[in-house]
Amino acid sequence: MRTQVAIIGAGPAGLMLGRLLDLAGIDNVILERKSANYVLGRIRAGVLEQGSVDLMTRAQVDRRLQAEGLVHHGTDLSFDGDRLRIDFTDLVGRHVMVYGQTEVTRDLMDARQGQTIYEAEDVSLHDLDGKPWVNWVKDGVTHRLDCDYVAGCDGYHGVSRASVPQSALTTFERVYPFGWLGVLVDKPPVAHELIYAHHERGFALCSQRSMIRSRYYVQVPTDEKVENWSDDRFWDELRRRLNPETAEALETGPSIEKSIAPLRSFVAEPLRFGALFLAGDAAHIVPPTGAKGLNLAMSDVAMLADAFIEFYGERSSVGVELYSARALSRIWKAERFSWWMTSLLHTFPENGPFGRRIQRAEFDYLAGSRVAQQSLAENYTGLPS
Amino acid sequence: MRTQVAIIGAGPAGLMLGRLLDLAGIDNVILERKSANYVLGRIRAGVLEQGSVDLMTRAQVDRRLQAEGLVHHGTDLSFDGDRLRIDFTDLVGRHVMVYGQTEVTRDLMDARQGQTIYEAEDVSLHDLDGKPWVNWVKDGVTHRLDCDYVAGCDGYHGVSRASVPQSALTTFERVYPFGWLGVLVDKPPVAHELIYAHHERGFALCSQRSMIRSRYYVQVPTDEKVENWSDDRFWDELRRRLNPETAEALETGPSIEKSIAPLRSFVAEPLRFGALFLAGDAAHIVPPTGAKGLNLAMSDVAMLADAFIEFYGERSSVGVELYSARALSRIWKAERFSWWMTSLLHTFPENGPFGRRIQRAEFDYLAGSRVAQQSLAENYTGLPS
Repeated sequence: MRTQVAIIGAGPAGLMLGRLLDLAGIDNVILERKSANYVLGRIRAGVLEQGSVDLMTRAQVDRRLQAEGLVHHGTDLSFDGDRLRIDFTDLVGRHVMVYGQTEVTRDLMDARQGQTIYEAEDVSLHDLDGKPWVNWVKDGVTHRLDCDYVAGCDGYHGVSRASVPQSALTTFERVYPFGWLGVLVDKPPVAHELIYAHHERGFALCSQRSMIRSRYYVQVPTDEKVENWSDDRFWDELRRRLNPETAEALETGPSIEKSIAPLRSFVAEPLRFGALFLAGDAAHIVPPTGAKGLNLAMSDVAMLADAFIEFYGERSSVGVELYSARALSRIWKAERFSWWMTSLLHTFPENGPFGRRIQRAEFDYLAGSRVAQQSLAENYTGLPS
Repeated sequence: MRTQVAIIGAGPAGLMLGRLLDLAGIDNVILERKSANYVLGRIRAGVLEQGSVDLMTRAQVDRRLQAEGLVHHGTDLSFDGDRLRIDFTDLVGRHVMVYGQTEVTRDLMDARQGQTIYEAEDVSLHDLDGKPWVNWVKDGVTHRLDCDYVAGCDGYHGVSRASVPQSALTTFERVYPFGWLGVLVDKPPVAHELIYAHHERGFALCSQRSMIRSRYYVQVPTDEKVENWSDDRFWDELRRRLNPETAEALETGPSIEKSIAPLRSFVAEPLRFGALFLAGDAAHIVPPTGAKGLNLAMSDVAMLADAFIEFYGERSSVGVELYSARALSRIWKAERFSWWMTSLLHTFPENGPFGRRIQRAEFDYLAGSRVAQQSLAENYTGLPS
């Protein structure tokens, strides 16, 4: 088998890249280790920057997003019960759209024209410095795909980044001393917009998937076990971290999903090794505060698709050569913002009393400064490329 | 002896408070442990926010400041040799004025009408909860001053804060793992404006006292000894941390002062204990990055003077009651900014590679975002009260 671009991973990054290449007439094959249903079962955030919405439109997969996505003109911050609304539209003339990552994946899956091979086991990458090819096993049979380029869109634990010699990659990482315990519930969200709450007991987030499905989180220690959290304990803890009116308005119910996710910042540099290009979680992880993960993956693959389109259309390697530096410039700014918002809103044992006052001063400064709010808003809704 | 307000400390905070009270016809006596010449010999920064300039005008001591002060419309940041000018005037319509703290002190000393008792030894504060009085020893004789209020303007190591029972004060502190090695030289400054430089070898600052006197700093470890730094070594190290054109333009000469200052963030709360009010360094310390120390002292004593004027003029205690909370709101925002600017520009061993990239991303974000620059500029030139 032969293709122009072999894409590893059928998450939203791989599927979007495949879709953009399909539309440009560039042959591509997607290899995915898991089944389509498994991929669709992953619960992830869904706050789309305007750039991501625009990319869905460019990919001609925005019909359901435009109909069902929820426009959020702002977000709420809460600090020890004091609330501050950040009005994106007023501050920077942009907004975000809430639309579950699962829905993005589904829309891209439904639109898929090129070949996607699910349950491709033991994927391995070869001759990345020469004429690259990819091996995998399906139903006990080993297959081979020759290609011009490999796009590694297979996430943090995928084979793509692991295929780069350690000496060729520099990695940067911060592991936070806590995780997010998340509960999904079929109840209307407590507020029209998201609420990011700092409380002395820890961070909490009220988010939503739709008008009738909500997602709530509380900060827990890294070693916490989900078994220790009955629904009742979760709702009690969440209420304690919100301001009284929000706690009062909260509609609770049986959790339909409950899990703990660790928080991590991670970047690998560079994003290119020979014919292999890393994109999305394969290249970088942000803590979920700030909702940048999916949006960064979308901007990575948009740049990468344009690079391939330029290469095949104009035989110019400029985009391909510049992809790593261009994408990293955007990635590091999003890493900074995600780190900053995480630092502002969580409790850190090592901060001590001075650090906690600095967090409070940051909130108070934000509350009183339009330019500080504009800075938050321009980052949250997405910096220009 | 009896007065209305006993002021402890004849630095710029105590002298400015005394001056404002003199002009309002409120009787006050300043007690200072050192001699006038000793006080004038202290070398300190001198970047005045507009609010501090306005206060000098209100105090009718701005003649020399207006004639000799240098208006700075912006400042330069440098990160590993890349330069970014922050244009205060364009960004927020304000500027700062460079005028040495020693000159501020001298102007206030020259204008002093009330009594200042220098070389007052063994100052002690009594009955702060009742009818307060102050003791001191001069030329072997013990003196007593009865008063309504005591203003503690005697700095971090002074007797004022130490007179408050520990149980009545909460203190917040961060000690940074480095200090500033500073050199004063009679040469014109290398640039019209200040240059704050981050370099992988550490922070450096090019500042100035006048058109012919410059002050330069390099970050050194906390345990560094000034004896280890010949002038030549200092100039070599400074040059390595600046960008090549600046290093080239640097005019060096024999140091006329050379010293190492530790960097510390510190706040004591509350600022009032009975009849005692803390102001300036007695209440809080900021690291010098951001030039907030003198300006905070000036805004403290302006608020405190207004509180006393309200009390004696209108027999209203509102200003007196609110002083601590009002001043602390401003203080914590300045603490936050000073901590942020220190964090951005210095090297921290504990930061690791990820933290260093975050510093770089912060610089790159600043370089590309007008609102981020406006946020820096509004803090540097002074937030509104």
